[in-house]
Amino acid sequence: MVKVGIVGGTGYTGVELLRLLIQHPDVEIAAITSRKEVGMSVADLFPSLRGRISLKFSDPVDSPLEKCDVVFFATPNGIAMNEARRLIDAGVRLIDLAADFRIKDVPTWEKWYGMPHGSPELVAEAVYGLPEVHREKIRKARVLANPGCYPTAVQLGFLPLIEEGVVDLNNLIADCKSGVSGAGRKAEVHALFPEAADNFKAYGVSGHRHLPEIRQGLALAAGHDVGLTFVPHLTPMIRGIHATLYAKLTKDIDLQRIYEERFAGELFVDVMPQGSHPETRSVRASNMCRIAVHRPQGGDTVVILSVEDNLVKGAAGQALQNMNIMFGIPEATGLTQIAVLP
Amino acid sequence: MVKVGIVGGTGYTGVELLRLLIQHPDVEIAAITSRKEVGMSVADLFPSLRGRISLKFSDPVDSPLEKCDVVFFATPNGIAMNEARRLIDAGVRLIDLAADFRIKDVPTWEKWYGMPHGSPELVAEAVYGLPEVHREKIRKARVLANPGCYPTAVQLGFLPLIEEGVVDLNNLIADCKSGVSGAGRKAEVHALFPEAADNFKAYGVSGHRHLPEIRQGLALAAGHDVGLTFVPHLTPMIRGIHATLYAKLTKDIDLQRIYEERFAGELFVDVMPQGSHPETRSVRASNMCRIAVHRPQGGDTVVILSVEDNLVKGAAGQALQNMNIMFGIPEATGLTQIAVLP
Amino acid sequence: MVKVGIVGGTGYTGVELLRLLIQHPDVEIAAITSRKEVGMSVADLFPSLRGRISLKFSDPVDSPLEKCDVVFFATPNGIAMNEARRLIDAGVRLIDLAADFRIKDVPTWEKWYGMPHGSPELVAEAVYGLPEVHREKIRKARVLANPGCYPTAVQLGFLPLIEEGVVDLNNLIADCKSGVSGAGRKAEVHALFPEAADNFKAYGVSGHRHLPEIRQGLALAAGHDVGLTFVPHLTPMIRGIHATLYAKLTKDIDLQRIYEERFAGELFVDVMPQGSHPETRSVRASNMCRIAVHRPQGGDTVVILSVEDNLVKGAAGQALQNMNIMFGIPEATGLTQIAVLP
Amino acid sequence: MVKVGIVGGTGYTGVELLRLLIQHPDVEIAAITSRKEVGMSVADLFPSLRGRISLKFSDPVDSPLEKCDVVFFATPNGIAMNEARRLIDAGVRLIDLAADFRIKDVPTWEKWYGMPHGSPELVAEAVYGLPEVHREKIRKARVLANPGCYPTAVQLGFLPLIEEGVVDLNNLIADCKSGVSGAGRKAEVHALFPEAADNFKAYGVSGHRHLPEIRQGLALAAGHDVGLTFVPHLTPMIRGIHATLYAKLTKDIDLQRIYEERFAGELFVDVMPQGSHPETRSVRASNMCRIAVHRPQGGDTVVILSVEDNLVKGAAGQALQNMNIMFGIPEATGLTQIAVLP
Repeated sequence: MVKVGIVGGTGYTGVELLRLLIQHPDVEIAAITSRKEVGMSVADLFPSLRGRISLKFSDPVDSPLEKCDVVFFATPNGIAMNEARRLIDAGVRLIDLAADFRIKDVPTWEKWYGMPHGSPELVAEAVYGLPEVHREKIRKARVLANPGCYPTAVQLGFLPLIEEGVVDLNNLIADCKSGVSGAGRKAEVHALFPEAADNFKAYGVSGHRHLPEIRQGLALAAGHDVGLTFVPHLTPMIRGIHATLYAKLTKDIDLQRIYEERFAGELFVDVMPQGSHPETRSVRASNMCRIAVHRPQGGDTVVILSVEDNLVKGAAGQALQNMNIMFGIPEATGLTQIAVLP
Repeated sequence: MVKVGIVGGTGYTGVELLRLLIQHPDVEIAAITSRKEVGMSVADLFPSLRGRISLKFSDPVDSPLEKCDVVFFATPNGIAMNEARRLIDAGVRLIDLAADFRIKDVPTWEKWYGMPHGSPELVAEAVYGLPEVHREKIRKARVLANPGCYPTAVQLGFLPLIEEGVVDLNNLIADCKSGVSGAGRKAEVHALFPEAADNFKAYGVSGHRHLPEIRQGLALAAGHDVGLTFVPHLTPMIRGIHATLYAKLTKDIDLQRIYEERFAGELFVDVMPQGSHPETRSVRASNMCRIAVHRPQGGDTVVILSVEDNLVKGAAGQALQNMNIMFGIPEATGLTQIAVLP
Repeated sequence: MVKVGIVGGTGYTGVELLRLLIQHPDVEIAAITSRKEVGMSVADLFPSLRGRISLKFSDPVDSPLEKCDVVFFATPNGIAMNEARRLIDAGVRLIDLAADFRIKDVPTWEKWYGMPHGSPELVAEAVYGLPEVHREKIRKARVLANPGCYPTAVQLGFLPLIEEGVVDLNNLIADCKSGVSGAGRKAEVHALFPEAADNFKAYGVSGHRHLPEIRQGLALAAGHDVGLTFVPHLTPMIRGIHATLYAKLTKDIDLQRIYEERFAGELFVDVMPQGSHPETRSVRASNMCRIAVHRPQGGDTVVILSVEDNLVKGAAGQALQNMNIMFGIPEATGLTQIAVLP
Repeated sequence: MVKVGIVGGTGYTGVELLRLLIQHPDVEIAAITSRKEVGMSVADLFPSLRGRISLKFSDPVDSPLEKCDVVFFATPNGIAMNEARRLIDAGVRLIDLAADFRIKDVPTWEKWYGMPHGSPELVAEAVYGLPEVHREKIRKARVLANPGCYPTAVQLGFLPLIEEGVVDLNNLIADCKSGVSGAGRKAEVHALFPEAADNFKAYGVSGHRHLPEIRQGLALAAGHDVGLTFVPHLTPMIRGIHATLYAKLTKDIDLQRIYEERFAGELFVDVMPQGSHPETRSVRASNMCRIAVHRPQGGDTVVILSVEDNLVKGAAGQALQNMNIMFGIPEATGLTQIAVLP
């Protein structure tokens, strides 16, 4: 049994992590902390968990986090980085669902996240938890940086093209659409139902924090910097990300084949038949990323469609997948839920 | 031209009032105030109004409210009652879209609204602005209490039965469903899209502030107190209220006829053919209330279905209808928008 | 391993049944039939099942249904009744998710369903599959009539009151709200997104097929007929039923206690603390029914709130629960999924 | 008064046209035809119109269409082309909201629409009704081809860049998102609420009928063919189109200025301040198209955001705008409705 602690479990990533951890056969949840909700029963905050968990939210300072095997941070950005050293020194492994350890270049991180980094010395060591790229390093990670929701869908979609060197890397476009749960469980006017329902809009066109994260991952695959335009949009659904990716082909190649080969052994990436249109609901509440390849009218523009559930493969599910890898548990354990459709 | 002021125009009632006032041929908007947004252009807050209004939100203390013919309060409860005396003394008429002047019994008001009343001496004078009942008094009102959203749909639905004396008044049930805009444009977690979408729940079953308001109106029609159970629910739509009303018949009577006769001259109450199922979208963004009468299996339970747009006939539209009556303008002026369907 | 056949698996009940059966550890799906989709891969119709099922839809006449242990009918009304005799004679047990065997009085069934019954001689034998009432009979059932979605939520909500004899049985009201998946996966205009979204309406107020089914169940508990008004509504969500039930108390009694005692041993009925407001999303994609008891203002009207997922506890989940009981499998097997929230 | 006929008024474009025409001060609706609904009152089909129109649907063969000044075709593709000659010969002008006269190259039209053209000799004469481009020709048009919904948003968004010659025309990308009403009021499974709600998907990536229409318009502006990738998506909202357009700058230029100048006199194109994120709801139920210009990180990729209501500026509203121009009525008449927000 892996003894698990959760720091900050009152947001959407937190409740999704709880849903998955509770159903994981090899996990024991030892503590869940929330400064704001100390003493409240978890199942009172999230009635979907009634009868399935008896824990109460505890104060971080009183919680037995240092006795855990692993601690998940489902907190806002800037928390995990200040707690990481203490936990690591106590022999606890750490999985951060926020962004503290995702960007290798600390000044870049500090610019985009608007704060000084609390433990820059751990950034180099931290492993970026995209299993389809870094599986071997993840096994031994002490600090695991769980990827962002957009970066997961976009990187998985672009990687085969980049690794094969078949597209113009100066001119990548990622037009992404996210459900509103991506904005978190925060009381903000723009995410109210009457604001976000029956409405569609772009946001952050001038620059979004996931841009440097995606660029870093693509550059790693390419061996050098890439030119990427990333436009996120808000769409009136609860969960789901749909990334529509555009690139210019520089070689004539069997695109379907390179995608199928690249992800042949992957349990959570499904390359659909060429010409498919994956729907976000086909992965709702599941850890799957489904990808389809298009080359409209046989031209030299390739269009990749990549969908995931932002709270599962884009957050809590991938975190659990990483935990499984870190602790030598079969990778799909606790992650075999079939998507909820309709 | 009626010179209009608006106090508090940053909520959903406020923007809806603006939408209607701007299109009203006999109105000039002189000022709109908001402490929080002083100096901000109204059209910057609500881009739907770009090109249609050049006003900025102004500070209430600097605003020429006392030079207006009428001031609308689209504020939280407890504001209008403290400003009313000053405005009335300046000869300004006042339409309160909040609840300050709706309940005639001041202690009852203070109990349900949890605050002392700021101008109890004006409560008796205030006119309850349900035109279908109080049209004559509305003409001369100085203080107009615009009815609540649920109370409008429920009273219009029950009134013919009560005025005719054909149902058991001890056992009325109003099962009501509202769109989320009824919760206001306030940053609160329960109204976030991921909380309210794809979800349905009751709330306030133990007691909702609209209960005493409805009871007061029905008792007035009955000549004595009535027994009413009122259960509001939140449904995942932006606008619209659907009231499903149940009563026990005490006389055999042509129900359809009494409804048609009761509302024969009314411009904004539409009695549909017997057995109809009015949809909330059939009144979306319009000032209409549509009502249908049912007597399932010919039994002694009558079921009334009453729908309205909570922001129009349930708020801003009815306020404008009242303004028209108060100023001798034809009642439908500025209120002839056809419902937006689909 | 229970060898399972499915007749008609192309609707919402069918795909939900597949989702649950695939994840059930003791089940082998031997065949799934559809006249319309013969030869099509199940996973091509429902991409959520890609990688999880390799079956194709087969023609009913060619399918090895008679070699199954149990056959689920996820068909329109009027199919199972014509196939039941043949399967039973072959020793196959049958679970009908449609309505063919729900009503004991054949003429009543024929009136509400508008067709002659194909195997009236099996109706008496058929067991009504509400485990919380008929668990013992279910164990040995050859023909299992899986309850309707509304009837499940309404009966579970009313039963404790009726069994305890504490309410006026002449005057029960069930105001019910359903998500649109309840209308099935049929190409009909009224269920289109632009018709059903951002909209609320009642339907079938003059009479709905679930009325006689609910009445039968309540009468059985009461020992005599009951007077029930049942009004179903369509609400813009995919899944979920919310039943708001009203009854007049005839005795002063601890309501919370009788509910808690009645459902004490039940795995899939959750009596929430008094005064709770269960949300449909708290049971989304799970087999749970959550119930809360209210007595507004301490009066003599009791209000019961009962929520379920219409496709799970209201259909496929309850069918699987019944299968577990019929085959001596622990009742919760394959049904422990936690609700998907948000 | 303009005497108007409508052929085929039972779809979403039809009911929207009715909503606008009824409120137009200079219009008299003489007839509305529908083969399928002959004899049905229009207000029975669309209760939102109760009290506002007394017409019934009539059979096209009996209807006084030839006595109208103008006939709108709100029909499927392939109808108007067969009726056009007869009407024109009778001196009636024709506005086709379908696609019959949009494409100048008849073989291209026949390929994409899969049928022979019924009146190819009228195609050259037909005027493409994008007022911002063809206003002068529209004045005298006998056959008016009302633009498609996507083509309106995309062309208005791209035109200033192309007319100024400042982008690479070989590599334009239009990533478009539409509400479900764009699929029409047709009973099809993919548009059911449980299929389309809480879901996002691309469709027609390999080729959509609006592609040649957009290409034709952009080529006209450029003076030669352009390379365009067009990917439409379905988003869970009723109305609205959001076009996200990408192009590579070939000159350094003040983009904001060229947009503002290009649309300076236009009543229904609103160029928002640079860096804005227009929301579809800001134009809901209005005839406005709002556009914002972005140049992320000051790079050489320009991102244009263009929103419209697909049923208004993308269909019925633009048709009415064209009618106003054709009959010398001030262009905004009957089209001044403010967007419905929230």
